[in-house]
Amino acid sequence: MQDKNYLMIPGPTAVPPSVLEAISRPMFGHRTEEFAAMYKRIVEKLQMVFQTKNDIFVMTQTGTGGMETAIANAVSPGDKVLALVTGNFGERFAKLARIYGGEVDELSFAWGSPVNVKQVEEKLAANQYKVVLATQNETSTGVLNDIEGIGRLVAKTPALLLVDGVSGVGGIEIKVDEWQVDMLVTASQKAMMLPPGLAMVSVSKKAWEVIEKNTSPRFYFSLPAAKNKYDSWNTPYTPGVSLYVGLDVALDMMVKEGMDNVYARHKLLARATRAAARALGLKMLAEDDWASPVVTGIYSPEGIGADDIRKIAKKEFAVTFAGGQGILKGKAFRIAHMGFADKMDVIIAIAALEMALKKAGYPVELGTGMKAAQEVLLGGND
Amino acid sequence: MQDKNYLMIPGPTAVPPSVLEAISRPMFGHRTEEFAAMYKRIVEKLQMVFQTKNDIFVMTQTGTGGMETAIANAVSPGDKVLALVTGNFGERFAKLARIYGGEVDELSFAWGSPVNVKQVEEKLAANQYKVVLATQNETSTGVLNDIEGIGRLVAKTPALLLVDGVSGVGGIEIKVDEWQVDMLVTASQKAMMLPPGLAMVSVSKKAWEVIEKNTSPRFYFSLPAAKNKYDSWNTPYTPGVSLYVGLDVALDMMVKEGMDNVYARHKLLARATRAAARALGLKMLAEDDWASPVVTGIYSPEGIGADDIRKIAKKEFAVTFAGGQGILKGKAFRIAHMGFADKMDVIIAIAALEMALKKAGYPVELGTGMKAAQEVLLGGND
Repeated sequence: MQDKNYLMIPGPTAVPPSVLEAISRPMFGHRTEEFAAMYKRIVEKLQMVFQTKNDIFVMTQTGTGGMETAIANAVSPGDKVLALVTGNFGERFAKLARIYGGEVDELSFAWGSPVNVKQVEEKLAANQYKVVLATQNETSTGVLNDIEGIGRLVAKTPALLLVDGVSGVGGIEIKVDEWQVDMLVTASQKAMMLPPGLAMVSVSKKAWEVIEKNTSPRFYFSLPAAKNKYDSWNTPYTPGVSLYVGLDVALDMMVKEGMDNVYARHKLLARATRAAARALGLKMLAEDDWASPVVTGIYSPEGIGADDIRKIAKKEFAVTFAGGQGILKGKAFRIAHMGFADKMDVIIAIAALEMALKKAGYPVELGTGMKAAQEVLLGGND
Repeated sequence: MQDKNYLMIPGPTAVPPSVLEAISRPMFGHRTEEFAAMYKRIVEKLQMVFQTKNDIFVMTQTGTGGMETAIANAVSPGDKVLALVTGNFGERFAKLARIYGGEVDELSFAWGSPVNVKQVEEKLAANQYKVVLATQNETSTGVLNDIEGIGRLVAKTPALLLVDGVSGVGGIEIKVDEWQVDMLVTASQKAMMLPPGLAMVSVSKKAWEVIEKNTSPRFYFSLPAAKNKYDSWNTPYTPGVSLYVGLDVALDMMVKEGMDNVYARHKLLARATRAAARALGLKMLAEDDWASPVVTGIYSPEGIGADDIRKIAKKEFAVTFAGGQGILKGKAFRIAHMGFADKMDVIIAIAALEMALKKAGYPVELGTGMKAAQEVLLGGND
């Protein structure tokens, strides 16, 4: 059955039917009161999700375009940049800063480990940075970084803190104002439950002062241009109207569930997934203390290729897991439980994983992982 | 009735129901054979529309992002650029080239007039340009430029010809290979019958040689990065999967109608609109010889504000015309007949125009414009 397709990759993720309906509504113009009222509603709801009073711009591009927007507006040639790297997406952020002429110090941590805040403190004490780059949820490894701890340190310096929240925001709590995040970037196709095509960027007052002096070439990614229209709830260039309509609906769903419940749901699904994988004798990429609530990275067993497991799950059960990225290619796979994911999605994932492992030749007693997952799911949101 | 909404602006345009259905299909991953097969199909159909064998990249951004992609990859700081400007979008293209460090000569023509090819010839003879910028269909005035004539001249020089075809491609014929267009940019939300969110950029062999040496900062807009994945029918960053599905369907509709019929339909609708407006005593922005087939710019009558006409049409009849841009703000309005537009759309536009003019105090005999439009529509595609 071609239409049964269990998408368990960390973006794009499954889109709720009501959001699919919303994006297929007839087109309307963006230079209208209707669009302005919608943009205002969207921003107010995003401010609640971001926990900020800062401006939040919705831009028609995917997450990488959002990351480039942050860099192109904050980094001028010659700026000293500290990049905290815990995986593939941390590397991408650092690469972007170099492309825009930043002199980048990379503080890298082993894949599967989080940022060591103590080392950040030492780096900040010894150097004068203009910009610090961090990843909230490192999608490539399933590691959650301590943005609160990093934010506390960076706030004491003149540097701006830019956070890649692409795969986390909407599934993992973030407190932009309290944690003093100067620019937070996220995108539509992860925990926000939409198709890919929108990025969202928040900008603090401290960031605006830097942005206004920035000399990098930018037009489509220009935040001053966006700000100029934002004050009348519009966009400088044609926005992706359909996806905005979908975002409005997706945010309503999140408001209705309650953000605390949304975050608890993601944590529960992560715990169930990890318990199941452990019961099957598998090793996690990340320790429990810094495990991502939205995606779980798992090493494939000795002698069995991660991509073989993925191929069987896809072919036999229409379940798509993500592969390992970078140095983990072929050695690990990832199960996403972000956005429109609930208990039965974990059940499907674990059942498919057990059967794929068995087919791949790994000695597994069917139901072992399932039992562990069910026990966590029954335990509730504690 | 809120759901009756006759959208007659030059983007976003009305989206066919079958395309709306396509974009609301369940999500699937982009690192799959399914996506690769779709991207290949899309490119093959776009090559037929563009009349080219060149690579065509589909990118997740709106038209302005597409224009910036062309500039960011082709223009290096200090490059001499000739910008042919016939309105607002020609100015935008020139501005982008300056942002990326181009030394831009603007050759400007009166709003409502096309590029004078003779003057281009003189400019090219007297200067050594690296890049020439032209607009196929100047959306702000409804003027069609002679890309064939410009292309013939530029091809004799080392300069690249970059063409903004955002509002024209899919509604107005363009022959990329025969006319030697080095980069053609278009977008989804105009004649291509999709919501905003995708841009398409074709790249000639001559352009690749320049792109590879380009030093401007770019990552999301990087054509070498796009090319690297294109060879296996993928994209370097997450693509807007839903809109790709819609594009596949929209292109099928165009193939089924036949491109010659698509182009003849647009010309017929333009002729009917112009005949009707003239019968009502109104003055066009563009002469017949260079009138756009996809959007008609019309001066409002002496003493009557163009925006008053637009407001009445919107409020009373749910018909949205576009306003004048730049120096034409308040003085002109525009009726788009692009993409999913047919005879009855012109009928609706003219009926609303007649009634709005009468309500605004202009002496109009109702039915005069309508009769002229009907006569053209009955005359067929000659």
